[in-house]
Amino acid sequence: MIIDIPTNSDFSIHNIPFGIFSTKDRSPRAGVAVGEHILDLAAVAELDVFDFNSAVLEKDTLNDFISLGKEITSKVRKDIQHWLQDDASPLAGKPELFVKQSEAQMHMPLHVGDYTDFYSSIEHATNVGKMFRDPENALLPNWKHIPVGYHGRASSIIISGQPIHRPKGQTLPKDAEKPVFGPSQRLDFELEMGFVVGKDTKLGESVSTSEAEDYIFGLVLFNDWSARDIQKWEYVPLGPFLAKNFASSISPWIVTLNALEPFRVEGPEQKPEVLPYLQFEGKRNYDVSLEVALAPEGGEAETICRSNFKYMYWNMAQQLAHHTVNGCNINIGDMMASGTISGKDENSYGSMLELAWMGTKPIKLKDGSERKFINDGDTVIMRGYAEKDGKRVGFGEVRTKVLPAK
Amino acid sequence: MIIDIPTNSDFSIHNIPFGIFSTKDRSPRAGVAVGEHILDLAAVAELDVFDFNSAVLEKDTLNDFISLGKEITSKVRKDIQHWLQDDASPLAGKPELFVKQSEAQMHMPLHVGDYTDFYSSIEHATNVGKMFRDPENALLPNWKHIPVGYHGRASSIIISGQPIHRPKGQTLPKDAEKPVFGPSQRLDFELEMGFVVGKDTKLGESVSTSEAEDYIFGLVLFNDWSARDIQKWEYVPLGPFLAKNFASSISPWIVTLNALEPFRVEGPEQKPEVLPYLQFEGKRNYDVSLEVALAPEGGEAETICRSNFKYMYWNMAQQLAHHTVNGCNINIGDMMASGTISGKDENSYGSMLELAWMGTKPIKLKDGSERKFINDGDTVIMRGYAEKDGKRVGFGEVRTKVLPAK
Repeated sequence: MIIDIPTNSDFSIHNIPFGIFSTKDRSPRAGVAVGEHILDLAAVAELDVFDFNSAVLEKDTLNDFISLGKEITSKVRKDIQHWLQDDASPLAGKPELFVKQSEAQMHMPLHVGDYTDFYSSIEHATNVGKMFRDPENALLPNWKHIPVGYHGRASSIIISGQPIHRPKGQTLPKDAEKPVFGPSQRLDFELEMGFVVGKDTKLGESVSTSEAEDYIFGLVLFNDWSARDIQKWEYVPLGPFLAKNFASSISPWIVTLNALEPFRVEGPEQKPEVLPYLQFEGKRNYDVSLEVALAPEGGEAETICRSNFKYMYWNMAQQLAHHTVNGCNINIGDMMASGTISGKDENSYGSMLELAWMGTKPIKLKDGSERKFINDGDTVIMRGYAEKDGKRVGFGEVRTKVLPAK
Repeated sequence: MIIDIPTNSDFSIHNIPFGIFSTKDRSPRAGVAVGEHILDLAAVAELDVFDFNSAVLEKDTLNDFISLGKEITSKVRKDIQHWLQDDASPLAGKPELFVKQSEAQMHMPLHVGDYTDFYSSIEHATNVGKMFRDPENALLPNWKHIPVGYHGRASSIIISGQPIHRPKGQTLPKDAEKPVFGPSQRLDFELEMGFVVGKDTKLGESVSTSEAEDYIFGLVLFNDWSARDIQKWEYVPLGPFLAKNFASSISPWIVTLNALEPFRVEGPEQKPEVLPYLQFEGKRNYDVSLEVALAPEGGEAETICRSNFKYMYWNMAQQLAHHTVNGCNINIGDMMASGTISGKDENSYGSMLELAWMGTKPIKLKDGSERKFINDGDTVIMRGYAEKDGKRVGFGEVRTKVLPAK
């Protein structure tokens, strides 16, 4: 190994995720995470080792790199894996190609054209249905037939580390006749994963479930920030809007679908049988351990949720097939998020709404304080990794501090 | 006048709308519509008459031109108005600057980053509420307090003239227990106007109603295609998705807010009083006559709806103030549509759903056929213009033919 990779690193030789970073002396460019370092792909390109137009590696997003197609981008990943393990490789003896992550600034790795959020965890949809509708009929009639989704705001997707301000908006206080305006009192996170579209379609084209993975470049952790009180008042009949579009935070490294291949698992049984255009052959899901930690201002981070991406009822291929079955066109860089990922156990729920069950079961923190929702000064950290047979492929984290309303 | 403008042209000297066009011999570039011609702005720029970087006029979208700011873009419009009326102007004696519209191809004038659709006509919201919910309580409790809106799909916004295929999708037939898959049986148009964001904000910033017009570059006609049967089955609880995102069609010429200034009118009274952040000083609306015509395959176009933009309950400034009040950032080129614009009269309803009242009052066409929704082979044409004191400012049309499902 020509660079030291700590045991248990998310960014092992099996991972090789792509991102955009900058350093004091050079503007944003492409890199891959390797242990505690970043391999500077723009610098590697200067060694003339790539047989494609490597100008795409000097851009401030990965869109043009991704648009080279998986044949090329997968080969880049494999080449890097080989080079890192070969003492006679073009990267050997060139420490200047490696930047310490602690000395780099990460940037939004994509220009996101459109963003779609799904609602594909049956446990989450059931919990929300129990709380807001009918505990006996928690799932709506369409839920097991459709990977329910809606359009979100692409402009406000931000990178880990960028703080957000508590959003202001209209809410209807309990028993009030008129709405009021002010800072949200029920700010929440949603633990999700987002996938990045890696191939365009034209308007009118559809992508089948069997082709879908060819259209997915990779995944990130996704915190779909939500203001529950704003959402409750605004969301009928056309869905969530200002309750969501003030910010969604993503982790900076895009872990490729290739890297996740060893971690495939069966998904939950789908019953009743789904329509033919939604049927998927093979292992539907990926076993990715997920957790959410909360750090109060000046305090220690505590894990408040442990979930897993394998709980998804609908998988990414089904989501993409559904999204395009009407001919809706997709573009490289589009982002599609899973919806909150909850499991069966109470500590696996992927939002404060569920963890504290609408405020009826506040979470106790070690400093003695309680949380029904997220306070000003709190930092929410999501982490995720897959591990099997000694191989670890991780996502790093998405970390966001909540500042008071402006 | 150095070019002939027919009386009653939408593209009078008072208009000067911007668009992107191409000709056989030259790629897409910026132009303004003047009568039956297009003034080629890229060619005008070669005369060295502009004191800004005129490379923005040679781009295939107007985003960079708009980003120059209204101080410059408004001056360009005014200069052109003067030059067209001045026989000694830089444009005089240069017929090569003018291209016949019939010999040009129009293109999407914008890269649309994000698209938002509002629901701001009280007559439309009331009609839909009567049909689908409770005739006695047609409006939901939030409607008069919030300019209700939701995110739409930016990628599938297309230009007038581009045909669409009838979308396929899941629907739940009447009295059926299971959904079926196939072409939509209830394809509909929605008569809307869309405005184009002309100035960026940063995440966390808000735009007040009094500042909002500074952030609006101009308007287009907007056909928000809808598949009612898909919508009915999918839309709870997160709003319309595949029922809308297969296509939205816009007219090619962006009519500036400046050009519409003479046509300001009062809006409907807003009662109860709206929250302070939504209050708007002055004349809220614009008097723009709107109509929808339907042409069956091989048949004549017949007007089936006459409405007006002045009916809007919430205006654009209120929509934009609401959209950004939580800090959601907007970008140049973003599009925000009004929602279906219906009036009080039955012939002013802006969708087939309302015109044929859920299929109970089919529309009779001159060829003897009836329409509950839109048939394959039908062409839907929307037109709009403002007229006052002999001045006419029009939008031209958005025309879309519906082809059979693929």
